[in-house]
Amino acid sequence: MSASLIEIARTFNSFTSAAEKSVLFSTKQNPSTPSSKQLYIANTLVGFVPPFAIEAFSKSSYFTSTPISITLVPSLLSYQQRTHAIASMLSAWKSSGLFECLKGWRNEQYTVYGSNNEPIVAIERSAIGLFGVRSYGCHLNGYVRTVDAHHQSTIKMWVARRSYRKQTNPGMLDNIVGGGLPCGANPTANIIKESFEEAGISSDIASRAISVGVVSFWQDSSIRGYIPDTEFCYDLELDASFIPHPADGEVEEFFLWDLETVKDHLSKGEFTPEAGLVVVDFLIRHGAVHPLSEPAFLELSLLLRREFPFPGPSFV
Amino acid sequence: MSASLIEIARTFNSFTSAAEKSVLFSTKQNPSTPSSKQLYIANTLVGFVPPFAIEAFSKSSYFTSTPISITLVPSLLSYQQRTHAIASMLSAWKSSGLFECLKGWRNEQYTVYGSNNEPIVAIERSAIGLFGVRSYGCHLNGYVRTVDAHHQSTIKMWVARRSYRKQTNPGMLDNIVGGGLPCGANPTANIIKESFEEAGISSDIASRAISVGVVSFWQDSSIRGYIPDTEFCYDLELDASFIPHPADGEVEEFFLWDLETVKDHLSKGEFTPEAGLVVVDFLIRHGAVHPLSEPAFLELSLLLRREFPFPGPSFV
Repeated sequence: MSASLIEIARTFNSFTSAAEKSVLFSTKQNPSTPSSKQLYIANTLVGFVPPFAIEAFSKSSYFTSTPISITLVPSLLSYQQRTHAIASMLSAWKSSGLFECLKGWRNEQYTVYGSNNEPIVAIERSAIGLFGVRSYGCHLNGYVRTVDAHHQSTIKMWVARRSYRKQTNPGMLDNIVGGGLPCGANPTANIIKESFEEAGISSDIASRAISVGVVSFWQDSSIRGYIPDTEFCYDLELDASFIPHPADGEVEEFFLWDLETVKDHLSKGEFTPEAGLVVVDFLIRHGAVHPLSEPAFLELSLLLRREFPFPGPSFV
Repeated sequence: MSASLIEIARTFNSFTSAAEKSVLFSTKQNPSTPSSKQLYIANTLVGFVPPFAIEAFSKSSYFTSTPISITLVPSLLSYQQRTHAIASMLSAWKSSGLFECLKGWRNEQYTVYGSNNEPIVAIERSAIGLFGVRSYGCHLNGYVRTVDAHHQSTIKMWVARRSYRKQTNPGMLDNIVGGGLPCGANPTANIIKESFEEAGISSDIASRAISVGVVSFWQDSSIRGYIPDTEFCYDLELDASFIPHPADGEVEEFFLWDLETVKDHLSKGEFTPEAGLVVVDFLIRHGAVHPLSEPAFLELSLLLRREFPFPGPSFV
């Protein structure tokens, strides 16, 4: 089984723009079906609640409902109060075994931002798809470049196979370094820290990584819910002599592949959604996927930068 | 007067997503105000007609109107028939001096694509904003890199000042090479051709340019109309000894600037919209604008890849 890059990108971006519009523009007279609902916290639209989570929210005293929206009660005034209330609700949901995704409880919180980029609440990572709020991660493309006498440059990319013991996407292919961006961290500091933990890249070397932009996509997972995800991307050119080695047991093995081999594994669906789209972005930025090689080049380019109707963070 | 990068990007992207939605979701019961209309050709939504052009379309026998849409009559069955009909209408509009933008008649046609990426009509370049159909261009970022003993890389960028005699944006700053993508051309061949004409870059050297993706934005111009524009971007690393020289008189002078100087001129509004956004994309991809330097980094990154509700071309 092999799929084209655009099919892969569409699969990873499984919550379509059309579905987004049907929730965003549903009205009380004409609520969308199936009934995803807009989620409001601190007067801000911050997420979409997936159909399978609506009943649970409607039973919680912390939320009020209309045919099109779910709203955290405004009496919860502060970040701390909101975070505490939601943690207590999730703890009850976890105990009662209500949602499969909460079995992967991470004890790690993701921040939700208000319209001025201010943190308005933090939510346990394994639960964010139930709220459909934005999530964030950082990925590092580690690559080795050789240039011949005719200025022709050849790039090979380091690829990691995730540990078979990881909670999410065990055994799948990933970037040399990648992970969620936890509460309070900044993307650049986070990528340097993770570079050492996941691939044994010293902070001296990791500090040479270049921020190259973002990739964003919106996943619709039947287990986790809606994941409007943003990945901060970094490129790091490594010496041919460098060999990565995992320090924290999160990686099974590393491969150094030419870009055609990377594309083969992409088309077989072996990469995680996050890494898959980050790798497609790398292939586009380095000329390995271009207008004359890829029939859906324009759609693919634009699909990698999905806009979301919810505010996000600022790190400055 | 100096503006932040995000203000510049918003200015260039002056037809907002909110305005787009108001035209896209207007209904016969509730037509949007001011009355931009959806444009249909060959059963495909291909553009938005700006308010100031609606009356002219409604008087043409080639088009039919509703409160929300304008449609090319379906009896024009072929690409040739449609192209001929629209050329004849535009010729009459030009003679009667109806639209300012037609004074800049280019004798160059842009292709409009149908839902399977097939050309369905070609329209004179100076008129495309009256139809609000997609336009395409190619830009080359020419740069010089120096790397010191500590692997620290410094980039300088070649910037062109457009001839003061050009019809559009005379005297403004531009990429070393840039221009519209005419009917039938492919982006890579076009950038090689333009590299020689505009900057004296031989095809040997220009062939080393790397396709690095696209930048897209939607301009609302009171003179030209709506311009949903896509630029195919290329990076070309040049030797420090290379000096560009214009072959066709379209460039006044060239500058080799460090990236801080480029940002200064950007913030003064001296770049054309196309080049300005292509340069912002270059700054992001090369780490000169990053999450810790730019408060609106996320918004800026996503604003450079505007999606359009109209189909585009495929070059494969």
